[in-house]
Amino acid sequence: MTQVTRTDVVIVGAGPVGLFAVFELGLLDLKCHLIDILDRPGGQCAELYPEKPIYDIPAWPVISGQELVDRLMEQIKPFQPQFTFNRMVCALERLEDGSFRVTTDEGEVFEAKVVVIAAGGGSFQPKRPPIPGIEAFEGKSVFYAVRRMEEFRDEDLLIVGGGDSALDWTLNLQPIARRLTLVHRRPEFRAAPDSVNKMLALRDEGKLTFQIGQVTALTGEDGQLTGARVKGPDGEVEIACTRLLPFFGLTMKLGPIANWGLNLHENLIPVDTEKFETSEPGIFAIGDINHYPGKLKLILSGFHEAALMAQAAKRIVHPDQRVVFQYTTSSTSLQKKLGVAG
Amino acid sequence: MTQVTRTDVVIVGAGPVGLFAVFELGLLDLKCHLIDILDRPGGQCAELYPEKPIYDIPAWPVISGQELVDRLMEQIKPFQPQFTFNRMVCALERLEDGSFRVTTDEGEVFEAKVVVIAAGGGSFQPKRPPIPGIEAFEGKSVFYAVRRMEEFRDEDLLIVGGGDSALDWTLNLQPIARRLTLVHRRPEFRAAPDSVNKMLALRDEGKLTFQIGQVTALTGEDGQLTGARVKGPDGEVEIACTRLLPFFGLTMKLGPIANWGLNLHENLIPVDTEKFETSEPGIFAIGDINHYPGKLKLILSGFHEAALMAQAAKRIVHPDQRVVFQYTTSSTSLQKKLGVAG
Repeated sequence: MTQVTRTDVVIVGAGPVGLFAVFELGLLDLKCHLIDILDRPGGQCAELYPEKPIYDIPAWPVISGQELVDRLMEQIKPFQPQFTFNRMVCALERLEDGSFRVTTDEGEVFEAKVVVIAAGGGSFQPKRPPIPGIEAFEGKSVFYAVRRMEEFRDEDLLIVGGGDSALDWTLNLQPIARRLTLVHRRPEFRAAPDSVNKMLALRDEGKLTFQIGQVTALTGEDGQLTGARVKGPDGEVEIACTRLLPFFGLTMKLGPIANWGLNLHENLIPVDTEKFETSEPGIFAIGDINHYPGKLKLILSGFHEAALMAQAAKRIVHPDQRVVFQYTTSSTSLQKKLGVAG
Repeated sequence: MTQVTRTDVVIVGAGPVGLFAVFELGLLDLKCHLIDILDRPGGQCAELYPEKPIYDIPAWPVISGQELVDRLMEQIKPFQPQFTFNRMVCALERLEDGSFRVTTDEGEVFEAKVVVIAAGGGSFQPKRPPIPGIEAFEGKSVFYAVRRMEEFRDEDLLIVGGGDSALDWTLNLQPIARRLTLVHRRPEFRAAPDSVNKMLALRDEGKLTFQIGQVTALTGEDGQLTGARVKGPDGEVEIACTRLLPFFGLTMKLGPIANWGLNLHENLIPVDTEKFETSEPGIFAIGDINHYPGKLKLILSGFHEAALMAQAAKRIVHPDQRVVFQYTTSSTSLQKKLGVAG
């Protein structure tokens, strides 16, 4: 039987806005569980521009994407949010009692009275390389991410790409693979030089093969790969392999959110500006994924939206409790929750 | 003839939200002039709780009121905002060309196409001490603030209060006054100990008088004070004086904003949530002074309101220019304005 994780609020997306929602909900005693397709908190900030300076976070004349995420993680720590990373929320359905069941692509089930969609531009999804017929092998012998390393033990691996993901997984999987070939279209890499040097050392020891070129065709049947054709500067070669791992970067897609029965407008979720609630009562949308008149896709707007949403979420989770608006500067009760009461 | 200061946007109030408005307007090339009744930027944060920790500014797990103000001042520096402190905006009228004339209580005149009211709870105004008939002397021989020290030269001053304002002005005005008496209801002071020690040293040198007690009555006519009755532990005394300066702290009042012809709702200014515009086109209200469904009096909400307001202000000041929404993280043009382009 599937184990069900129960919480007050499920937050879909652990970017800066999802993280700050934990703070605003926490001040109102609501517990949160965040689900994100990436392997760590921060969303776009951490994935796309961890080192790029941001200049428009109020009272931060300059802050990097990663530092913003680190500060938010520190700020929400008192509320002990739970995280499930590397998962996409596939299904969202309303139960008879009005609460929601949230199911991930790995089958985990969460139940909560409130769902907050803080999914930014949607899910980061791996880019599919332009190899004819690759769809037939996906999920069986072609994978865009490594969720459990054991599934690759004693296989003949073909890893494609020149970035950090390709190099990191080359180094991590080489010890357990039967054979490993790395294919990249040119001799230069975007990955960290240290990783490249380690990979070249393993090649020189004969522990892996590095091939310059591009995969042009796959062979195999019933989804089970047996080989790949690689076209390089010196012609084409056939490489025997049982697993293919292409790392061609990530692209942003709305993903399964489109199937949750919410009103959508140009891939955005229309909300009111009082509670930032969607067309479905109890489901809220904050940050870049929502839309209302005047909307700007600014992180600071998502912070504001999180604060107003939290008041409405509180009334849904605890309809019997009166919400007294308090300030962190003056309320001893809020300061106790933050662990800073004198 | 009165000199008129022209700018793009007059901001009434230099609290954190008024300050951040400079940033958002500056990104859109709009120049700002801020007017505040206090003598420095920061509003309530600087006046009421400069050293108190605030916990709910996003990405600041803890920040003091003064540090928040300092960081915002640093963030808006590239846009060179102009400030007029120690002034209350008394009148706001629309000119024939649709722009606005703003007049302070000292008669300075500003003209701008856009006015942003970021006045928090209103104006900080001095508390009136409970002395019968004091109103008749106000502005003639009773003053709640020192705007020009010269007006107190060679006068017989009576200063009342035990806080920093009372002590600071005692020390500053003593050298130019003909005579100076400080009255406080008890021998202990809220003011900085160093100021108290300096005052006591001047008393010991015979350069001022310190009297424990409370002012119970004033004498004089046509608004011109001649003396005050002070009731102390040993009975009542009459103190001859020509100027009375009571420093009983500040209280927040909506003030002249009530007379500007704007729709008001329980001393708040209703606005839309697309532009945060008031009932008068071109006049915006952001921060604690506005009201809309869901409104929370949070600094972070004022920041969001400032960002959306700025887009609308831009269209009023430069109706001919197309507003292209850009990110500070990626736009070289915004980075040039911030002085950080590589």
